Amino acid sequence: MKFKAEVDVMPLEALLDPQGKAVTSAMGNLGLGGIQNVRIGKHMTLWVEADNEQSAHQMVEEACQKLLCNAIMEQYRFAIEKV
Amino acid sequence: MKFKAEVDVMPLEALLDPQGKAVTSAMGNLGLGGIQNVRIGKHMTLWVEADNEQSAHQMVEEACQKLLCNAIMEQYRFAIEKV
Repeated sequence: MKFKAEVDVMPLEALLDPQGKAVTSAMGNLGLGGIQNVRIGKHMTLWVEADNEQSAHQMVEEACQKLLCNAIMEQYRFAIEKV
Repeated sequence: MKFKAEVDVMPLEALLDPQGKAVTSAMGNLGLGGIQNVRIGKHMTLWVEADNEQSAHQMVEEACQKLLCNAIMEQYRFAIEKV
């Protein structure tokens, strides 16, 4: 079965996000002062071939921990759907 | 009212994504061959102060078009929720 996983990897809440801060201040210059805070991370779409949703879930979890997310600075979350 | 927008900016389907290709082949080396394709983009969380959801939507739309997304190479999608 084929699954699609949508993974978000974001900087930890406790850490500064200089890229996000720069974009936040650029929003003011664009006349979009209503946008008061921005945090920037990565979004990844994974296509997974697995026997069932549980095994796809395990595979994506392992990929996040081993490769996609640096747990010292980032946190991840993901959602899986059958395609 | 305060809103939170979750924005995904991804490379256009028609374009190569070399970063995603590199990660895909690394998956094989990690024993995660079930992960057959990866595409990598950006995820942004925006906190928006606006009078209503429609005006928050317009603001985020404008931010995407003017700053967050390069329409030549990328596409965006977002979801807004009240916080």
